[in-house]
Amino acid sequence: MAIEAKADLLNEQQHDVAGVIRALKERFADRCATSHALREQHGHTTTWLTNQPPDAVVFAETTDEVAEIVRLCAAENIPVIAFGTGTSLEGHVNAPRGGISIDLSRMNRVLEVNSDDLDCRVEAGVTRKQLNSYIRDTGLFFPIDPGADASLGGMAATRASGTNAVRYGTMKDAVLGLTVVTADGSIIKTGGRARKSSAGYDLTRLFVGSEGTLGIITELTIRLHGQPEAISGGVCPFPDVEAACQAVIMTIQMGLPVARIELLDSLQVKACNAYSKLDLAETPTLFLEFHGSEAGVQEQSEMFSAIADELGGGPFKWATVAEDRTRLWSARHDAYWAGKGLRPEAQIVATDVCVPISQLAECVIQTAQDIEAEGLLAPIVGHVGDGNFHVQILVDLDDPEEMRKSEAFVERLAIRALDMGGTCTGEHGVGQGKQKYMRREHGDALEMMQAIKQALDPHNLMNPGKILPQS
Amino acid sequence: MAIEAKADLLNEQQHDVAGVIRALKERFADRCATSHALREQHGHTTTWLTNQPPDAVVFAETTDEVAEIVRLCAAENIPVIAFGTGTSLEGHVNAPRGGISIDLSRMNRVLEVNSDDLDCRVEAGVTRKQLNSYIRDTGLFFPIDPGADASLGGMAATRASGTNAVRYGTMKDAVLGLTVVTADGSIIKTGGRARKSSAGYDLTRLFVGSEGTLGIITELTIRLHGQPEAISGGVCPFPDVEAACQAVIMTIQMGLPVARIELLDSLQVKACNAYSKLDLAETPTLFLEFHGSEAGVQEQSEMFSAIADELGGGPFKWATVAEDRTRLWSARHDAYWAGKGLRPEAQIVATDVCVPISQLAECVIQTAQDIEAEGLLAPIVGHVGDGNFHVQILVDLDDPEEMRKSEAFVERLAIRALDMGGTCTGEHGVGQGKQKYMRREHGDALEMMQAIKQALDPHNLMNPGKILPQS
Repeated sequence: MAIEAKADLLNEQQHDVAGVIRALKERFADRCATSHALREQHGHTTTWLTNQPPDAVVFAETTDEVAEIVRLCAAENIPVIAFGTGTSLEGHVNAPRGGISIDLSRMNRVLEVNSDDLDCRVEAGVTRKQLNSYIRDTGLFFPIDPGADASLGGMAATRASGTNAVRYGTMKDAVLGLTVVTADGSIIKTGGRARKSSAGYDLTRLFVGSEGTLGIITELTIRLHGQPEAISGGVCPFPDVEAACQAVIMTIQMGLPVARIELLDSLQVKACNAYSKLDLAETPTLFLEFHGSEAGVQEQSEMFSAIADELGGGPFKWATVAEDRTRLWSARHDAYWAGKGLRPEAQIVATDVCVPISQLAECVIQTAQDIEAEGLLAPIVGHVGDGNFHVQILVDLDDPEEMRKSEAFVERLAIRALDMGGTCTGEHGVGQGKQKYMRREHGDALEMMQAIKQALDPHNLMNPGKILPQS
Repeated sequence: MAIEAKADLLNEQQHDVAGVIRALKERFADRCATSHALREQHGHTTTWLTNQPPDAVVFAETTDEVAEIVRLCAAENIPVIAFGTGTSLEGHVNAPRGGISIDLSRMNRVLEVNSDDLDCRVEAGVTRKQLNSYIRDTGLFFPIDPGADASLGGMAATRASGTNAVRYGTMKDAVLGLTVVTADGSIIKTGGRARKSSAGYDLTRLFVGSEGTLGIITELTIRLHGQPEAISGGVCPFPDVEAACQAVIMTIQMGLPVARIELLDSLQVKACNAYSKLDLAETPTLFLEFHGSEAGVQEQSEMFSAIADELGGGPFKWATVAEDRTRLWSARHDAYWAGKGLRPEAQIVATDVCVPISQLAECVIQTAQDIEAEGLLAPIVGHVGDGNFHVQILVDLDDPEEMRKSEAFVERLAIRALDMGGTCTGEHGVGQGKQKYMRREHGDALEMMQAIKQALDPHNLMNPGKILPQS
């Protein structure tokens, strides 16, 4: 595509950052901070990427304050980076050109809960667990659960998902509307509370996944779900990854409305056994959960058991008691730390890809072979109902040889997924770490993304250096 | 918002339309036509809006041909309007500035069906019924069903939905990826076959609902669903609209995974009785359908019966036999024609709005009062699980007084929905008919839409005069 207003993402000259910080300190007093530790923490991500701290951090408390900060920065061509909980994995909050990190964690009010409409409005700093605690008594819940207790603004910005996405969708599906501070410090509202609309361009979903590069999300209207009457679930071992993946395909194809279906490879099972005191057979294993009526979850479990049996898997071990289930899913959510336990002195390079489900077995098998051939220690765990899986490579970040190997492995994995018709990231996002695959994934559509970035952020001040590769 | 590259949507001087038509005739022979009847048909919409025919119609057969036509037109600043089946309702395919209508109905090949992945790739001219016939033997189905047998390209362009949306979502949820011809005649691919991705801006959902104003959709990758093992359904009368709407709210809140839940007001029931030879009580009635296992649909039906009973509705009349069900849903899909039967010599002004479900009863009640006060003949029918409902006003288009009344009514309805936190259109789209509500619905976000339009179609050649109000 050769759109005329071609994106010019070059870094423009930035002006008086010291002056802007002075003005921010005057306006926000000790809510504007420049200590080294705080700045470093705000460039921090759960990542292997080099820390690039912002010049200052401001703790905003309202949308108007965010707008004010953005206007102050825009006047001097200073970048702004939105910060939620700092749990992103691909360098999303690094500040390669410096600038001001706008910390939204104090914008943590649940503004309204509309039980009749199954929606709520929250500030961007509310975390997923905080929201679920808040609404517990309403009979509703918010299903999207990335590993971390991330902020909802950050989850929208990275188009996050988690274990429930196979049934309840991702942030793309959960967000009904947004309040956004634009690059020039204006405030707009996108979407609304109607469950569907055909009234114009879908700005909401343009902002979901835009990683703060088009504007800063300050409020969200979010769809909730009724708590299921009954939940059941359990674990099911398989002789190999192939059989486990076939079971997933059959489950999805039969329209079994599984709420969670997660694959752990043998190494991940071993890690979870050790870390979470489980005694699972160390073989590829599916963790499952069913939501519905009492009779419905019983029936779903039975139907899944039959599928597993047909594929040489099983026996499917039920966990109907809530405590057993909690123990299991805690273990699943602790997979990251369990993996780390395999080599406690190491750090983790975490990566994810997503492929069409028919390619899942092949992609996981090739990836496992690659791990073995390279002698890496890297458990695999995945939201396989979506074709999405993660590899955590345990590395010594200070060992150049290990890092070279890991980075080359991550690259082969991303390209493998793309060659299979998949995506280089299913839920972690692009940040800095996945930029180099954007051209391969999107081809000429990348120019269209650049044209949109150019139109909405002409001076490239909103989280610059993320998503779009620099020209 | 005061984005710097402010949209300039003024109509630029267009050049040699006769020359372009000559070139198109030379290239496409009798696939380029200029007969009055054909041009008028291609400006036609199922609408009350004045016909504005294009200067010529070209029947494209491939994406490359579409690109070629767009490039030819772009060189002379001639508008292009994509045309599917001409079933849009708000003047979407009118050509207020003339130009070339690109008819995609011959691009009607199903390109691939991936049963394992529950997806398929189709050309834009494939209709929803054609697709469902094609995939019938695969055990899969495509659930989205607007009244008309629309083309999938057109359905994506207007973000269409229908009776199954409450369970299966709208075109926003169904489309995984697109092939799009951009304003300069380039070809891009958006999205992909992975079920989720966090890799960059969601161009797919920017094009879904953009009504051909940002580019022309020529191919779609679409999500399919497994045919449910069992289907049951039926009709349930209620004493009033309030009780019917409360039943809907309770059903949704309990997480009953109802596949269809449609409201017909008394007048619509009367119309359907006459047109489709039914013998329903002429009172507000819900049409329902449940998908699942045999036991599951039985249980859902029972749970719904209990809800209806609690609200003074019922008895819920089952239609478990496929023929009875087909008869019922045929009647529902023929609601448009049934409505017309109430006054055979009249035309229909069809409109839709969507509100948060808690506001549905109030919105429908006020609308019914408005209809009565104005002495309009206008049945109400709605996809109430989404808070979406339609009014069909039976009017004599040649009677200025009737038209004035109808237009004023439509305007009050749109504003009523917006004031209740809803949208001026849930599924019909904006086209020309709903442009005047865009500012009220989107506020300053409208400038952002204009900035995107300006960035992707700088000369305003892609279906100009739609969605965005002219400045």
